[in-house]
Amino acid sequence: MAIKSPYLLFLGDAHDALAAKVAQGIVDWRPDNCVGQLRLDGCNADCGLTDMTVEQAVAAGAKTLVIGVANRGGVIADSWIEVLQSALDQGLDLAAGLHNKLADVPAIASKAQLLGRRLHDVRHPTETYPVGSGLPRRGKRVLPVGTDCSCGKMYTALALEKAMRARGIDSDFRATGQTGILICGSGVSVDAVVSDFISGATEVLAPEATDDNHWDIVEGQGSLYHPSFAGVTTGLIHGAQPDYLVLCHEPTRTHMRGLPHYPIPDVKACMEANLATARLTSPDVKFAGISVNTAALSEADADACIKELESTHGLPTVDPFRTGVDRLVDALL
Amino acid sequence: MAIKSPYLLFLGDAHDALAAKVAQGIVDWRPDNCVGQLRLDGCNADCGLTDMTVEQAVAAGAKTLVIGVANRGGVIADSWIEVLQSALDQGLDLAAGLHNKLADVPAIASKAQLLGRRLHDVRHPTETYPVGSGLPRRGKRVLPVGTDCSCGKMYTALALEKAMRARGIDSDFRATGQTGILICGSGVSVDAVVSDFISGATEVLAPEATDDNHWDIVEGQGSLYHPSFAGVTTGLIHGAQPDYLVLCHEPTRTHMRGLPHYPIPDVKACMEANLATARLTSPDVKFAGISVNTAALSEADADACIKELESTHGLPTVDPFRTGVDRLVDALL
Repeated sequence: MAIKSPYLLFLGDAHDALAAKVAQGIVDWRPDNCVGQLRLDGCNADCGLTDMTVEQAVAAGAKTLVIGVANRGGVIADSWIEVLQSALDQGLDLAAGLHNKLADVPAIASKAQLLGRRLHDVRHPTETYPVGSGLPRRGKRVLPVGTDCSCGKMYTALALEKAMRARGIDSDFRATGQTGILICGSGVSVDAVVSDFISGATEVLAPEATDDNHWDIVEGQGSLYHPSFAGVTTGLIHGAQPDYLVLCHEPTRTHMRGLPHYPIPDVKACMEANLATARLTSPDVKFAGISVNTAALSEADADACIKELESTHGLPTVDPFRTGVDRLVDALL
Repeated sequence: MAIKSPYLLFLGDAHDALAAKVAQGIVDWRPDNCVGQLRLDGCNADCGLTDMTVEQAVAAGAKTLVIGVANRGGVIADSWIEVLQSALDQGLDLAAGLHNKLADVPAIASKAQLLGRRLHDVRHPTETYPVGSGLPRRGKRVLPVGTDCSCGKMYTALALEKAMRARGIDSDFRATGQTGILICGSGVSVDAVVSDFISGATEVLAPEATDDNHWDIVEGQGSLYHPSFAGVTTGLIHGAQPDYLVLCHEPTRTHMRGLPHYPIPDVKACMEANLATARLTSPDVKFAGISVNTAALSEADADACIKELESTHGLPTVDPFRTGVDRLVDALL
């Protein structure tokens, strides 16, 4: 069920810019989907959009208020409810990717039902999915995979979509997590799907294309080397049936996210493990290149890191933020 | 939440013996947990227990009526409800592993709530689990893995528990699917857990032992080579943190269960893939042996098959049904 756009982005009482990173992601990747931002007293974030009341946003054409802020604990704050109710009253749907659901807040759920508004709790899948079939399907698919969680897979996928569309290539980012879903307006939060249906949900998310030259860029999740989440990653790889993988890597990390007792894998070993897994449903899968997140490095160190990975692995290596992903797109085409 | 035993096994109107295979599994592996069987008119199955009414079963000490029959569709039949209500009235809890829930049948749910009885819908986890930590934990664990789904992993695990207990070894079968849970009275249906928590649920299921010499025999699920379910298998392997694997194989199968377009993997390649996955959380993991389901073969062909696998792979090879699993237990110890 797609989220109706354009959006009014709700920044609430975000205590800093990082707390509003979901809203910032939407502005960065889908600026045309945003009519404005709504900030409450005490908000310390600013996504650079026009500040609007709900009334002004409706007048500007907004269809959905998207909660683009996460407070501590990732829950819907009591101080937000008055504005959210007002948005429903004035004709907007609501969307959020928080741990608790809009639909579980009685003051919001009852009003939405009364008025016939939609509540999109994108972290909580409501559809049911078939088990994966593994059947080959038309179209081309690329999947970023990571040495770790949170090392740039979503950013890389969105950058690929943007660069491909700029060249006129028919391509779609397919979101598999809540931020990606709020950015592009639809998708499946695969880590919240019942485990029997991980690959099946991914097959539904990135279905057979009507054209051989259509590209789906499927957002990656987790890492085969992360003992908490590798099951999600495996099902996602099998369901995505990728023609190409892109390895995403954060070179300064010393251990797997949240697990100080697990080292970051060797890049080469990680690539081989991902290929071995992906070959089950996509026998000819290859790596198109490497995407490094060098945000923590100086310009000189970032250059050196990118060059070293490129020469070691013989694959185009980019930092999407510093260099763009054009060389990956060249490799894909 | 353990299911209270002993059980009255409900065979309902099973149209053949196969429809009552859950009940038969309980009788085979936990005969002391069963006081009798209850059959409705038209039942064509017989587990060899004394036929009893609910009253007689309660008098014999039964604590739970277990639905040991699956009709077409795997749902609770209307014709069963009168008996199930009577069981609740007379003090029994109910347990089932069907697709629809006892708790979703109003005539059952309301009576159970009124009387304070428990409804165990073992296919549908009700607990919440943490994400997996991957931390090493005390005790020994063995996990059967398969070239395919449904090739003897549960049977092998239960046979290992029985053989180990017969030698006085402290060991527990840890159920990961609905039949296993009904057989041993507790467990987690891992394929029904939200995918972020597969490995975490398995860590909870087979927790740190208080004794280095305790063995957990964790029931396997799916196969790394099954594109529908390999995500479940991966998370289960990581959470189980096995010291030993046992490869389960059905030698006459020509394709992966339900997927005619996917061949059965090479046994050697399958073993290597499972070791590679398991090493992430259990670096010294090894195969203890091979368990073949030769039910479809003649005695002579079964013998030849077992000998060939044993000599090719240099590992003790058994058919739990034909030969028992003592040679696997020898290898584990």
